[in-house]
Amino acid sequence: MVRPVPTFHDVCAAARRIEPFVHRTPVVRSTTIDGELDAEVYFKCENFQKVGAFKARGATHAVLMLDDTAARRGVITHSSGNHGAALAFAAGRREIPCTVVMPDDAPSVKVEAVRGYGADVVFCKQSDREMTCDRVIEATGMTLIHSYEDPHVVAGQGTAALELMEEVEDLDLVIAPLGGGGLLSGTALAVKGIRSDTAVYGAEPESVDDAYRSLACGKRQPAPRDPRSWADGLLTRLGELAFEVLRANGVQVVTVSEEQILLATLTVLQRMKLVVEPSGATVLAALRRMGKAVRGKRVGAIFSGGNTDFRWLDDPVLRALR
Amino acid sequence: MVRPVPTFHDVCAAARRIEPFVHRTPVVRSTTIDGELDAEVYFKCENFQKVGAFKARGATHAVLMLDDTAARRGVITHSSGNHGAALAFAAGRREIPCTVVMPDDAPSVKVEAVRGYGADVVFCKQSDREMTCDRVIEATGMTLIHSYEDPHVVAGQGTAALELMEEVEDLDLVIAPLGGGGLLSGTALAVKGIRSDTAVYGAEPESVDDAYRSLACGKRQPAPRDPRSWADGLLTRLGELAFEVLRANGVQVVTVSEEQILLATLTVLQRMKLVVEPSGATVLAALRRMGKAVRGKRVGAIFSGGNTDFRWLDDPVLRALR
Repeated sequence: MVRPVPTFHDVCAAARRIEPFVHRTPVVRSTTIDGELDAEVYFKCENFQKVGAFKARGATHAVLMLDDTAARRGVITHSSGNHGAALAFAAGRREIPCTVVMPDDAPSVKVEAVRGYGADVVFCKQSDREMTCDRVIEATGMTLIHSYEDPHVVAGQGTAALELMEEVEDLDLVIAPLGGGGLLSGTALAVKGIRSDTAVYGAEPESVDDAYRSLACGKRQPAPRDPRSWADGLLTRLGELAFEVLRANGVQVVTVSEEQILLATLTVLQRMKLVVEPSGATVLAALRRMGKAVRGKRVGAIFSGGNTDFRWLDDPVLRALR
Repeated sequence: MVRPVPTFHDVCAAARRIEPFVHRTPVVRSTTIDGELDAEVYFKCENFQKVGAFKARGATHAVLMLDDTAARRGVITHSSGNHGAALAFAAGRREIPCTVVMPDDAPSVKVEAVRGYGADVVFCKQSDREMTCDRVIEATGMTLIHSYEDPHVVAGQGTAALELMEEVEDLDLVIAPLGGGGLLSGTALAVKGIRSDTAVYGAEPESVDDAYRSLACGKRQPAPRDPRSWADGLLTRLGELAFEVLRANGVQVVTVSEEQILLATLTVLQRMKLVVEPSGATVLAALRRMGKAVRGKRVGAIFSGGNTDFRWLDDPVLRALR
């Protein structure tokens, strides 16, 4: 699979294309967190984005980039998370067909969300999802929109950081959550394109630290089998495209423990009064872990999304603190 | 107890005085809620206010209105909720002593919040709180700052609606939560002072509907004994001062059930990605209940605060929906 690597200009072009369809999300600060970290932290609130996550950006961009013939045939993806809902939303806005392949045991809330945007849902075993996509594509001619191995998606995801860099000048570093790497690689393109001195970091759960290991040794490493984390949006293995972009831009990875993720998610909820899913709160967990490295700095951090069932509030670690 | 009734001009003056100390909170909208209600709803986010609630406004104003002699002696109040923390915050900003009388069984989180702002906490039985205040006042000369029977407090609370009316023109109606009536009476003064055609509503839990009954019969009615509601900030009986202001301004009351309060709080959390305490979410519950009366209207609604321990998420009504 050879795909062109997206550039800073692709991110800028994506921003112009998707502007009518997505929110320019607010950037917020917290006196408490600034005080705790002894830094100026600017949080980009993609939890307020359409469909509740940055994924609306990449999916919208990929759908807009289809030529009319391909668009008429529609789009397909496999996702039990935010990307599926985002693609359904984007296809709905262009009024083209959309199929989302979901695992048999997907929560009914998520299934209904995708259907609510007008997409069809096809169920299969988790292990059969690619085969199921291929079968539908053969029958319909739909275009697969992968959630991160797609340059148009990556360029779209980068628009969140682009807005943040435009709004807040002279950031010393920008941090985004890291799973498949679509958001972080788009972020790296946007940040480095505007200010090459700004450092870019990814926040990754310790339990799925393949990106950390991959960048450390210079070769893409396998992810652990059946990984578990409260940051369920970050269980994905780092993609090939993202690996290339992150390496080329000197992106560093900070890993965070489950307890750190839980505490950060609770801080955002209790102190900032914002619903951010655990995957998104990893950026705060990572900044806390970085300690001295962020002191006195101007920091941008991307709260990637806000879709959660709040089961993490029941974790014994947090029960004791509420 | 004869107290002057505050006016629109008092609210405007309060806004100028407290401006350096409190946040001008954002006003947000939700496509989902606008669609559901077939209205334009502008939510004033006092959950993002200092100390997490509008109470910072009234307490700050009351503290700023003290002359230097009184200020040096300090301030006192009895409160297990947001007003206690707000007074501690306000006193801390003016660097004057503050004592908060709290019930023996107050949650330690709330006690620590008050102490965190630098105030002293005195514990007593809930039924002894006024006597305890009197005793401390006798010994120290502190000034009692009541949470709603105080014209400076009421004028301060009205500044939230003032900002909302300035930012969003031509609102057809404005709704605020209704407990003791401090926020709602301040709101009525601000709204009617700017646009006399704008209707003002209060949202009150069915289980503590003394304000509804009081305004219906024109005489202040007793509250139920030992009332219970998830909207724990609204368990207070309507105050005398508020009763006068609400009556004079033709304010109407909409009561809401516990189930409606829970569902509204969950909608705000899940769809708007905002933490608003059940007391604050009563405004959405009431708008839903009003149905046709809000259709096609431009509506202002005050999310009064965001301080909650999330125990309401465990209610069986919501367990089934998460």
